[in-house]
Amino acid sequence: MPNWSDVDTPAVLIDLEKVSANLLRVQGYADAHGLALRPHIKTHKLHRFANLQVEFGACGITCQKVGEAESMAAGGIQDILITYNLVGEAKLERLAKLHESIQMGVVTDNETVAQGYANKFQNPKHRLRVLVECDTGAGRCGVQTPEEALELARFIAGQPGLHFLGLMTYPPRNRVAEVDQWLEDARKLLTENHLAPEVISSGGTPNYYQAAEVKAVTEHRPGTYIYCDRMMASYGFGMLDDCALTVLATVVSRPTENRAVVDTGSKSLGSDRCDAPGMGHLVEYPDAIITTLNEEHGTIDLSACANKPAIGEKVRIIPNHVCLVSNLFDQVNLIRQDQVEATVPVNARGMVS
Amino acid sequence: MPNWSDVDTPAVLIDLEKVSANLLRVQGYADAHGLALRPHIKTHKLHRFANLQVEFGACGITCQKVGEAESMAAGGIQDILITYNLVGEAKLERLAKLHESIQMGVVTDNETVAQGYANKFQNPKHRLRVLVECDTGAGRCGVQTPEEALELARFIAGQPGLHFLGLMTYPPRNRVAEVDQWLEDARKLLTENHLAPEVISSGGTPNYYQAAEVKAVTEHRPGTYIYCDRMMASYGFGMLDDCALTVLATVVSRPTENRAVVDTGSKSLGSDRCDAPGMGHLVEYPDAIITTLNEEHGTIDLSACANKPAIGEKVRIIPNHVCLVSNLFDQVNLIRQDQVEATVPVNARGMVS
Repeated sequence: MPNWSDVDTPAVLIDLEKVSANLLRVQGYADAHGLALRPHIKTHKLHRFANLQVEFGACGITCQKVGEAESMAAGGIQDILITYNLVGEAKLERLAKLHESIQMGVVTDNETVAQGYANKFQNPKHRLRVLVECDTGAGRCGVQTPEEALELARFIAGQPGLHFLGLMTYPPRNRVAEVDQWLEDARKLLTENHLAPEVISSGGTPNYYQAAEVKAVTEHRPGTYIYCDRMMASYGFGMLDDCALTVLATVVSRPTENRAVVDTGSKSLGSDRCDAPGMGHLVEYPDAIITTLNEEHGTIDLSACANKPAIGEKVRIIPNHVCLVSNLFDQVNLIRQDQVEATVPVNARGMVS
Repeated sequence: MPNWSDVDTPAVLIDLEKVSANLLRVQGYADAHGLALRPHIKTHKLHRFANLQVEFGACGITCQKVGEAESMAAGGIQDILITYNLVGEAKLERLAKLHESIQMGVVTDNETVAQGYANKFQNPKHRLRVLVECDTGAGRCGVQTPEEALELARFIAGQPGLHFLGLMTYPPRNRVAEVDQWLEDARKLLTENHLAPEVISSGGTPNYYQAAEVKAVTEHRPGTYIYCDRMMASYGFGMLDDCALTVLATVVSRPTENRAVVDTGSKSLGSDRCDAPGMGHLVEYPDAIITTLNEEHGTIDLSACANKPAIGEKVRIIPNHVCLVSNLFDQVNLIRQDQVEATVPVNARGMVS
């Protein structure tokens, strides 16, 4: 087996031991607190890791796109929640096909989308599970109040082919009390109205270890935790040393004493920023700062580095936001103790719809 | 033929008439000023547009990656410059294969990389064309002074299998006089030393219409001009109405009076910012501001809009940086007068190495 340093660049390296440790740590918290874990596969887009997550105790997985769900169903996953308002006949037809063979769930935050589900799914003996998405402060999708949640839950529960399963939210970061209050109010209101939610599903890796403090929550959907990244580390979830995915790059230029250029840019690392300075973290040169990412160039300031890399040297970069990286590479290298155990296609890469 | 509004979302729409107009306008400037045009195909990654650029008068094309060049050679392109320091045996072997069948050129800004070329290419009857990359102020790759350019040119010219072709730069924006001085000094110094550059190649769309003011330049390598984008429009190159590529999105949520959410995010639009506010321009709602892109959500502030979109409505988004979009979609829709003329694969998408 080749060593990772033999792989041509740019390339993705995934440390299998770190992946296992990250999965087990998070599954352990869920188990200890009686939470169902439903990992979001947008971060890895790989059949093998989705199956590993289920093997380690996940109740199913989360997807954002019908195409991701189709890929994961083909890879053997039996229970998928798509946390997205699905609009239009093309997507509903694909959803219906999935619903025939595996356990599917979807969300809605409005009656237009719910009516679309109701029109497509009309079999009372095989109802589609629907959760109401709630905006608990993140300011993205979601009904705005528990009263709106009740109204939409009533609409869903009134449709013969739909099963009102509960509530779903992508919560704001670091506002646990606010989210707790919102969901608890909604849970009470629904219960008083004979629509007690079976599932209350929260998401996100940054707040994962506060999940149990939001008392109404029964299920959590973290995604990034499998790999961790610079953004998560800057939020206090995990350490840089937990980061399982790195982008292997080659130093192609050293124009000046304090400048290096590597062959990775925004087309391999993405251009999301995070609280830490620069556009990624160099494992071998932790004091280096990636000041700029052009499409295929990463420009690095070496001023603070005692040792400096030579042209031709390979370096590993922890990305700011790892979920973007999985969508930029057709294949990834799975590494165990510095050896490349396998090079595998990213099954759900590019599933845009 | 379907109308573009029938296409499921997210999807890329490319207006063929705007593409032709953009290509002809830029080719016309090159022709009028006696400049060779060598378009960078990183923006479109499509065989058909590379061939159209050559048909309209381009002397060849520019690529950033060996994989892009392999794809374009397979698509019929006969003359390719890779404006990148190529490092390592894997890439040099692939370059050698390309060099056997078509006219190839590469660049270097250091002796390590040049030595790699010299070791691999040793046939004096079929020499590899090499340009010296110059840092004329952009602070990325490139030799730092005309004297360094001379030294490296001498090294290249002394290798039996290499042909010193000239100089290449990716110039800083809006510093024409500085770039002009740098390249003119280098041209003189090289000429005095019997190494007169045959080609002096500059790049970039933002400064394209100042290309002729940099007197030493013989060739220009714009990329983004084929589609234009919000960044180019904000730089004063082209208008939003020239933008040929849009991302078609569906409004999936209207949580509040002034908020809409569309089914496109950083995994379909990229997350580059530009001088204009927000993360993209809505053609149908020009006063809307895309405030946030999550991976699969675009959150839109409608406060300034007189009319507001309904759930299920499709909207077209001009991206901030269009080159990233071509790398995120496996296929694109070619549009003529609102009809989808063809849906084609993005030939060189994901060619990371």
